[in-house]
Amino acid sequence: MKAIVLKKENTPPVYEDFKLDDKKDEVKVKLLASAINHRDLWIIKGMYAGIKYPIILGSDGLGLFEGKKVIINPGQNWGNDENVQSSKFKILGLPDHGTFAEFVYTPKQYLFPAPEHLTDFESAALPLGGLTAYRALFSKAKIKKNEKVLIAGIGGGVALFAMQFALAAGLEVYVSSSSDKKIKKAVDLGANGGINYTKKDWHRELKAISGGIDIIIDSAAGSGFSTYLKLINPGGRIVVYGGTRGNIQDLSPQILFWKQISILGSTMGSDRDFSDMLQFVNKHKIKPVLDSLYKLEDFNIAIKRMEEGKQFGKIVLKNVYT
Amino acid sequence: MKAIVLKKENTPPVYEDFKLDDKKDEVKVKLLASAINHRDLWIIKGMYAGIKYPIILGSDGLGLFEGKKVIINPGQNWGNDENVQSSKFKILGLPDHGTFAEFVYTPKQYLFPAPEHLTDFESAALPLGGLTAYRALFSKAKIKKNEKVLIAGIGGGVALFAMQFALAAGLEVYVSSSSDKKIKKAVDLGANGGINYTKKDWHRELKAISGGIDIIIDSAAGSGFSTYLKLINPGGRIVVYGGTRGNIQDLSPQILFWKQISILGSTMGSDRDFSDMLQFVNKHKIKPVLDSLYKLEDFNIAIKRMEEGKQFGKIVLKNVYT
Repeated sequence: MKAIVLKKENTPPVYEDFKLDDKKDEVKVKLLASAINHRDLWIIKGMYAGIKYPIILGSDGLGLFEGKKVIINPGQNWGNDENVQSSKFKILGLPDHGTFAEFVYTPKQYLFPAPEHLTDFESAALPLGGLTAYRALFSKAKIKKNEKVLIAGIGGGVALFAMQFALAAGLEVYVSSSSDKKIKKAVDLGANGGINYTKKDWHRELKAISGGIDIIIDSAAGSGFSTYLKLINPGGRIVVYGGTRGNIQDLSPQILFWKQISILGSTMGSDRDFSDMLQFVNKHKIKPVLDSLYKLEDFNIAIKRMEEGKQFGKIVLKNVYT
Repeated sequence: MKAIVLKKENTPPVYEDFKLDDKKDEVKVKLLASAINHRDLWIIKGMYAGIKYPIILGSDGLGLFEGKKVIINPGQNWGNDENVQSSKFKILGLPDHGTFAEFVYTPKQYLFPAPEHLTDFESAALPLGGLTAYRALFSKAKIKKNEKVLIAGIGGGVALFAMQFALAAGLEVYVSSSSDKKIKKAVDLGANGGINYTKKDWHRELKAISGGIDIIIDSAAGSGFSTYLKLINPGGRIVVYGGTRGNIQDLSPQILFWKQISILGSTMGSDRDFSDMLQFVNKHKIKPVLDSLYKLEDFNIAIKRMEEGKQFGKIVLKNVYT
């Protein structure tokens, strides 16, 4: 079969023929579409522990199994503790071969019916980003109706899901970005407002616009993170699911304890998070925001768009051409 | 009446006669004993917002009201939200006159019967430290039996209460300090082990001794804080109730999210925290660790001991001399 195969460190993956070994105890899914995540980029750049070669990348997929359209929960072997994944936890697309291929093997328990209100490409865009956003908001921040949330760095897959889920749950949603264009797009999609974080004193302006923020969903961290402590309301929760800007600096413990702030690390989600997420998406008829669509063979062009931070929504791949 | 009165900035408080105005809607308590907290030291040093002069210091007290021995919840006007204090929240001893005096006024609802198993001096030592430790462990970290907790900076009042409460709740308790003597004292009181944090790679050694730490209770913050992320088990909780070492630096977001770590700011406690704490202390017959006893008039000698970090347990004052 054809697949996107990462063959060695710091070398772009290649589109080529690959012989997938049969795996007993797992089922074979014929893939129709897949979607790119930042994780794929980090793996290509060698920034993941335990990378093995050759490996077919890809965590998100929409496929056919026994004649039905299915999506795959890419977070596997979570274990029994809702609070944290077990040491056996793994994500589809490393160490196991992933979804940028014509077929993928996965344990059957991770297959779920694709939402009926979604196209194949929308379904392929949902799993990893939807799962991560759902856990951050519901299992970690424990969002409540009418609270005010800031989704930082709008445009990425997880951030957009978080925005859509929070709006559907009845929260007031604000977004931040370095791009006024992305902020405008988010407001067009329903966000209550947004702020360009490259502005001086952006947190004061956001406070004025919003009347105060209860929850922040962040994937940047870095030196700007400490501003969140000033921005957030007493009793506020900050969820961190990424760290593109590096280590967090200069956090004031006095603000942290006096305002009773919680900083909550979150990644992926449990089996329960995934099925709850899917139920929520079906109930509220949420449609993933798609940025662009590429052929599987054009993977390296597609991921360049992510590397340059140009995307607004999920970058989707067409695995079969008919 | 005689009282310890702070008269101006950066000047030691003085022991002198003070005329306390009657306060309707509040009751007058005759104080027998009181106890010093770090808060008193910060106020004297001018490190608190909204200090007014003159002010009688003191948050902890044991007194007589209607012939019965009472302690006072120093955390007042918390409000209705268990997650965070209201903007009206105040702590006895600023802005209202406190317990380093012969009498104190307080709303009657903040009076509680002194635990019967405690001496007057032990009772006086309990309120603020016990409340802070209780909220940190039970309301924030939500400790569970058989978990392993590190109480950092053992010797301070809150840290020792946290140690005693965690032991009573069935946890395995480890302590840290820069003083081997304090660690030994903590082990003599029941701690399962301890580590001198001035040692290189102390966190590796503690991991080896303990087999892993689930919860950390910290009041230092500062540049050493980031080591906690390496030390703590996946799913761990770190509660911060102080910041003597300054701002937190160099926190890895990757460790934070991958290990699903929570960093929880905590200060004082709600009305419910206070009554739950008192019930817990009575049930488990917990006795506050006392460091030393001074006459009220010797307050400046007593607080010097705290400033120099020499104490192991609460520094108590005798308000009446009979």
